[in-house]
Amino acid sequence: VVTASAPQRIGVIGGTGALGRGLAYRLSRSGASVTIGSRDAERARATAQSLGAEVRGLSNAECASECDLGVVAVPFDAHAGLLESLAAQLRGKVVVDCVNPLAFDAQGARAVPVPEGSAAQQAQAVLAASAVVGAFHHVSAQLLLDADLERIDSDVLVVGDDRAATDIVQALVDTIPGMRGIYAGPLRNAAQVEALTATLISVNRRYRTHAGVRITGV
Amino acid sequence: VVTASAPQRIGVIGGTGALGRGLAYRLSRSGASVTIGSRDAERARATAQSLGAEVRGLSNAECASECDLGVVAVPFDAHAGLLESLAAQLRGKVVVDCVNPLAFDAQGARAVPVPEGSAAQQAQAVLAASAVVGAFHHVSAQLLLDADLERIDSDVLVVGDDRAATDIVQALVDTIPGMRGIYAGPLRNAAQVEALTATLISVNRRYRTHAGVRITGV
Repeated sequence: VVTASAPQRIGVIGGTGALGRGLAYRLSRSGASVTIGSRDAERARATAQSLGAEVRGLSNAECASECDLGVVAVPFDAHAGLLESLAAQLRGKVVVDCVNPLAFDAQGARAVPVPEGSAAQQAQAVLAASAVVGAFHHVSAQLLLDADLERIDSDVLVVGDDRAATDIVQALVDTIPGMRGIYAGPLRNAAQVEALTATLISVNRRYRTHAGVRITGV
Repeated sequence: VVTASAPQRIGVIGGTGALGRGLAYRLSRSGASVTIGSRDAERARATAQSLGAEVRGLSNAECASECDLGVVAVPFDAHAGLLESLAAQLRGKVVVDCVNPLAFDAQGARAVPVPEGSAAQQAQAVLAASAVVGAFHHVSAQLLLDADLERIDSDVLVVGDDRAATDIVQALVDTIPGMRGIYAGPLRNAAQVEALTATLISVNRRYRTHAGVRITGV
């Protein structure tokens, strides 16, 4: 049983991409105070306005500094460098990594090996003074951004080594109607959770859908 | 849409372990003709009898020879060697690999790297003249063996490079009440599907359950 409260001030770092926008929109709609960060603060403001909600746009540094909980939604090739530059602002905070290190070819998506084991483990290596949690890997940005969709029919696998931090992230997920945050083990489980996204992309291609994951028995 | 028919003669190679027994029981109950193979044919016969169904026990070589479709349910350390010894018997057949290369320590289960990328890819490398399909990785043996359980509330991710073979395996999964075979991409997607089992073991531990996976949107 998760008794943690969801944090109120969420900063979506690198939040101008599809998943970042989708999470910002959906978390704001669920009552959180959300800022979007971008290298280009002007672009962040424009993106925030386009979401039509009470989302604000800031530079990544301001976003990381102002938030209680940071969500990292950048392309993998920008991942380590960006986090290094924000280590001070994210110190002592929970950082949710939803980055999927994938490459694409004719067969579809495939997982890219990460020296640290996974994007989430890389984030924890860079952000030694933050509590990194992996989550939101499998959520369709398109569904998150669909204003007509009341519920998102998907669980979110939450991995992390800090129990208080995974509890907080599970509580955050639980604020989104239809979603459940499911604890899915230590941070070392992040590799297969991230890589599973490639599998879901294959499912999407075959069934022309936006596939999600539910855990049965929980 | 899968239009293939489920095969009738299933051989569960290395079928005396928990998952092998569970699949043999459940597939037999769903109407298939099932044999269990073991290095020790006497042990296979005893196991088959214990399942109380119309399951027969044979040596692994007889089991592989008699079946239309082979299911490989051996521990990973016996995997490559056993398959090498059965390549002739499995030639031209669909071979379903449900082996999870895992190791266990205080943190739970973790995925073990496989030189070929995954157990299923290793099977395909060894069985060049068979069509290897990965499936049944996440099904709880305990649920499969529970005679009081009519339905197994779980999807089965089916990965493989041969469309006819994945169609056959999906049709086989679909014979089990509650289960759906979901095509989940080429064989190279097997690594994360196999490794996800470690994640589900973490879920089982936290929630004291037998977790399964459902794909939403399909």
